[in-house]
Formats: sequence, C-alpha cells, structure tokens
Amino acid sequence: MKKIRLMTPGPTPVPERLALRMARPILHHRSKEFEELFGRVRDGLKWLFQTQQDVLTVASSGTGAMEASVVNFLKRGDAAICIDAGKFGERWWKIAKAHGIEPITLKVPWGEAVDPAAVKRALDEHPRARAVYVQANESSTGVAHPIEALAQVTKDRDALLVVDAISALGAMDLPMDKWGIDILLSACHKALGLPPGLAFIGVSEKAWRMNATSDLPRFYFNLKKELEAQQKNQTAFTPAISLVDGMDESLNMIREEGLPEVFARHKRLARMARAGAMGMGLSLYAKRPSEAMTTVNAPAAVDSEALVKHLFKKYGIKLVGGQDAAKGKIFRIAHLGYFDEFDMITVIAAVERGLNDLGHRVPYGAGLAAAQAAGAEQ
Amino acid sequence: MKKIRLMTPGPTPVPERLALRMARPILHHRSKEFEELFGRVRDGLKWLFQTQQDVLTVASSGTGAMEASVVNFLKRGDAAICIDAGKFGERWWKIAKAHGIEPITLKVPWGEAVDPAAVKRALDEHPRARAVYVQANESSTGVAHPIEALAQVTKDRDALLVVDAISALGAMDLPMDKWGIDILLSACHKALGLPPGLAFIGVSEKAWRMNATSDLPRFYFNLKKELEAQQKNQTAFTPAISLVDGMDESLNMIREEGLPEVFARHKRLARMARAGAMGMGLSLYAKRPSEAMTTVNAPAAVDSEALVKHLFKKYGIKLVGGQDAAKGKIFRIAHLGYFDEFDMITVIAAVERGLNDLGHRVPYGAGLAAAQAAGAEQ
Repeated sequence: MKKIRLMTPGPTPVPERLALRMARPILHHRSKEFEELFGRVRDGLKWLFQTQQDVLTVASSGTGAMEASVVNFLKRGDAAICIDAGKFGERWWKIAKAHGIEPITLKVPWGEAVDPAAVKRALDEHPRARAVYVQANESSTGVAHPIEALAQVTKDRDALLVVDAISALGAMDLPMDKWGIDILLSACHKALGLPPGLAFIGVSEKAWRMNATSDLPRFYFNLKKELEAQQKNQTAFTPAISLVDGMDESLNMIREEGLPEVFARHKRLARMARAGAMGMGLSLYAKRPSEAMTTVNAPAAVDSEALVKHLFKKYGIKLVGGQDAAKGKIFRIAHLGYFDEFDMITVIAAVERGLNDLGHRVPYGAGLAAAQAAGAEQ
Repeated sequence: MKKIRLMTPGPTPVPERLALRMARPILHHRSKEFEELFGRVRDGLKWLFQTQQDVLTVASSGTGAMEASVVNFLKRGDAAICIDAGKFGERWWKIAKAHGIEPITLKVPWGEAVDPAAVKRALDEHPRARAVYVQANESSTGVAHPIEALAQVTKDRDALLVVDAISALGAMDLPMDKWGIDILLSACHKALGLPPGLAFIGVSEKAWRMNATSDLPRFYFNLKKELEAQQKNQTAFTPAISLVDGMDESLNMIREEGLPEVFARHKRLARMARAGAMGMGLSLYAKRPSEAMTTVNAPAAVDSEALVKHLFKKYGIKLVGGQDAAKGKIFRIAHLGYFDEFDMITVIAAVERGLNDLGHRVPYGAGLAAAQAAGAEQ
C-alpha cells in the first residue's frame, strides 16, 4: 500500500468538500441559479482580494490572466518593466514581446528578490514604461518579492503595478486596495484548492483608466466586456461552471477559517518546513522566502531530481525539484492550500528518510524535532 | 419534489461516471501519470475528430478556440469570409475585427443554412480572403451548415475551412480528414458531457503551413507552442487537469457505445423531438436542422420565453428560448450528449403539458405518440 500525497505548488490537494461540491449536477449558466451563485463568488473574491473593485473571473489557467493584464491596459509603443527572477518572471517579458510591448527586463538572480530602488531607477530611465510586472511568489524559487514597497514606487506614477499572485493569494496577505496594487491576479488551483481552470483578475480604477486608451487586440480576454457581463453576475463567454461552483465552497472554507487565521497557518507551516530542513542540516535556497513554499538546497552530493523521484517512488510523496539553473540542486516543499501541521511533519519525515536512503546521513528525528518545535511555538 | 432536468445545448448533463472520475484526487501535470493520461486523451481526440493530425487541447471555453483559429493562421492584411447565420456566426466577424482582419460577412437569415455557391462567389470576389469561418451547428437556430459541400469549395484554394463544431462534435458525423476540414474545433461541455473549461482544436497540414507565415500577436493561445508541448504529452501552460481526466472517461464512454452508434442515437433523438413537436401541431424553425438540437416555433399566441420559464418552474425541465430576432418565438430542445429516447419522451410530455397550461390546447399524447413511433422506427 502506498498513499499518494501531493505537496506541489499547484495543483494542490483538492479538499473532499470541493470535489463533492463540483460533482453535483451542473447548473445552466444563463439562469437565475447561476447568477445567485456567481454573485456570491464575486462578493467573496472582493473580500479575498481585499478590494472594493470588481474581481473578474475567466476560464483559463493563470497565464491567461497574465496575458489579460498586458493586452487590456497597455497600448502600442508602450514599454513595461518586467521583473524576471525565475521561470514565471520570464513569462512577463515573453508576453510583452508577443504583443509588441517593449520589455524592460530587470533580471534578478534566481533565489533573490527584486530591490524596489532598482524598479524606481528603471521607471525613471524609461518614461515609456507604463507598468511594472512582478510575482508575489516566484514559484520557481520560492522567493516573495516586496510587493508593498513596490506599490510605494508606482503609487504616484503613471505606471501600473501588476502582481501575479497565482501561487500567493490566500497564502500571503496582499491587501490590494490598502497597498495600492493596480492589478492583482490569481488562479483557483493553488491556495484555493480547486483543480486548475479558473483565473481571477482584480482591476483598480487607475488600471481601468488605462484600459480606456489601450489598443492592443483582444477578444476572449477582453476584460471590459467581462466587466459589463460580470456586473450582472454573468460572463461574456461560457464560464467553467463546476469550478465556479467549487469556488463558492472554497470561499466558504476560507471564511470559516478566517483570513488572518489562513495567513497565520501558512506562516506556521512555512516556519515548520524551514525549521525541519535546517534541523537536518540543510540550507534554504530563497533569500526572501515566501509563505507559500519552502525551497531547500539539496546536500552537495545528492541530486535533488533523484531525491524527488525517490520520494515519490518509495513514499508516494510528490515534491518538485528545481528548474533551469536550479535543476538538480533544489527541491520545493509546497505548503499553500489544504495543508496542516501534520502534513509538514510528514514531508520532513519523508525527506529525512529519503536523504538517508540516498546515502546522505541525517540523524533520524533531527528535522522532525525542529519542525515539531516550530509548529508548537506561539 | 421536483426533479431538475437540463435539456440545454451546453452545458449538458454530466454523466455520473464523469463526475465521479473528476472527483478523484488530482494528478500533478508535470508527471509521468499525467503524460500517460494525456497521451490516451490525445489519441482519443484524433479518433473522435477522425483525423491523423494532432488535436490540441486548451484550458478555455469554446470561444478561446475560435479566437485561436484566427490569431494562429491569418496575417495582417488578410480578409476572412465569416458566415453569420446566428449568434455564434456573429462571433466570427467580431473576433476577426478585434484582430484587424477584414471580415467579409455572409449574412444568412436566421433559421437558414449558408449556400456553398455564395461562399464560392465570396472567395472569388475577395482574393485576400484566406479562410472561411462557419459553424457545424449554429446553436442559436439549430441549423446545420453544409460542411462537406463547403470543404469542396475551399479544397483547392488558398483558403482554410474553419469549422466551429462546439455543439456538433460527437453528435454529428464530421470526418475532418475525409471531408477536408482544415480546422475543426470543439469544447468538452456539449456532446462530450463534461462541465465547461476545455476546448479542442484539430489543425490540418494546410493550416500549419499558414501558421508559418501568420503574424498576429498571441501568447496563451499560441498553438505552435502547444503543438511542441503536446507532442510530448505535456501542455504549454497548466492544463485543466480534472477535465482532462474526465475527458479520458468521456472518450471511454463514446468508444464503448461506438462512434456510428453515437451518431445514430443523435439522429434518432432528433427524429423523435421533431416528430413530437409536429405531432403537437407545431412547426420547426430550422430549415436545415442539425442533429444536436431541435428548434421549434412556439404557437402564435404563446410567448416562448413564458413557456420556457413555466416548464422550469412547474416541471424542472430546463429548455432555452430564442435569442435576438427569435426571442419569444422559438424554443430549443437539446439532444446532444447524455440523452436517450426516454429523455425525448419526457421533454415532449412536458411541452404538451406546458402548452396546455398556458392555454394552447394540444390533445394529450399527440406529441408523445408521434415521438414514440419515431423512436421505434428502424
């Protein structure tokens, strides 16, 4: 018997409550019943995004919302500051280029966070830059960029702060209105615990003003059209109905736990994962670690790819390794979404066993004791 | 007690087998397990599309695939013949316009099918037209356009035939390769019985040749990138994993029944619905009716919107009425997907009751007897 445990940064485990909710008979989307459901989801999304603005829902994976945040707000001839600190940061300048926007790419070494002063300089040097594109959590490295400080930089300028919170929303506190994030986007299959297929995009008044002059071609991701439809609790095109239904239940679960409690839980799990790794004598990869995931340097003699494969094969624990430059060197423990303290104990136990299996000696229980103590800490 | 029965042309009822399959624990998409699953689905899609070409899967509703069929194949300065015979035909020229393609719109009266000779003339008159965009089943009217004849027109020309089979694939025989359809697109929430969120797009060699010179901006719907990933049983962006899983089971169900049998069932259900409506003294709206749905003219004194509302309120039967010019005048009975003969008996029984409830006298059983006879017919 082998139990499978997914501890990856998306998809994340789907709680049974959500799976059962989505298995109920499907609603027709052009109906009063759907409009009531979607109205609740829309209210819940505003609450979750901590905004008074509309949060739009589209049927796509998170990348669709990333593209939407470019094509609906910029115009031909614009430039954009793209913060590239990993695989997902890289996607920003690729999207910009695909749409004829000049990307001003701020390369940040993998494992590090962007310096807000560098963003300020880039904006000063490139007056055509109308937006700053960044990740709240760069999933390829586990780094959290300093969003609040970046919002201070863009605040009084003619440039939008666009934050990809695909793997951060619902794990880390990102108060959209309070901080002054112009566009906050996310997806349903990370901290929100659903299967992939829905993306969300919160749009500030400043961003809507730029939308009025934006002239890039768009159709499926035309957010103005979506706004008109969604303000009537409808969608421009057929919505991913079962996921919208599941989202209603996901919001119920988050409401029941409480938003501050959800963030506190993610902080606690992050503390446990980090303490556990360090208790085994390992070091952390991310210089400014996010609360959504913990990236750990594998011991010098251990290929992290081999470790990840071994953990799945022998123990059914699914982690992910590193990408590109970090391939073979790091492994990533996700703790965003449907995870509790005992999941962290389990993953640390598995890593302790796996490292020993692969010939890297770790005293049994060293990581566990540290993780347990970090979890018990008030 | 009121049983709810969805008899709408998308979403359609989700078979319990598919709901349960999608409720199973989610797979990680960057894994061998997913690649095996997706490999089976890819094979199944080729079989279902009756093509040797790759059929690509994207996480979006059907409109995303419609947009993909424009932005990946045309280039700046091109024109396109857009057959507009209803709400979905209208979408073609809107997409073309949004992307700077000149739409040559062939307006066809609602309820009628396009004349292939008119398409031939339009292509002769507009040498810059590089594609013909059409629906296999125009869901707003229930009309089936003559796809095989249209393929004869485009066959030896430098123009693609692009067929939206969102509400037709798996209900009507549309052999992509045999007929010479260049791009065939569909979605998972119609005849395939899943909740919405996946779209499919089969691309011919002729279309891939046009892709090589296409210069319209695209990112999320970049089909060349998808082809590269999907040929390795991966996707460029996070796939809608649970729907892909459900699709594997949907293909199993279609295989078990047999493709010719599935088409024969849809033909039989269409025959029953039409016979039932005519048995009640009603007339059909579509001049060239598709096998996916039956559109019926409401009696002159009955508002079809009122009938549709009444049927849902009193009997839990969800039909849809007409749109735009047909609003209040027609109602649409869907029979694509998870429907059998007794579902047709049920819907005809409900319409008989509903019309009488609203003061339009129909002899009880007149529609039922006709439907029953049409179902029993060999």
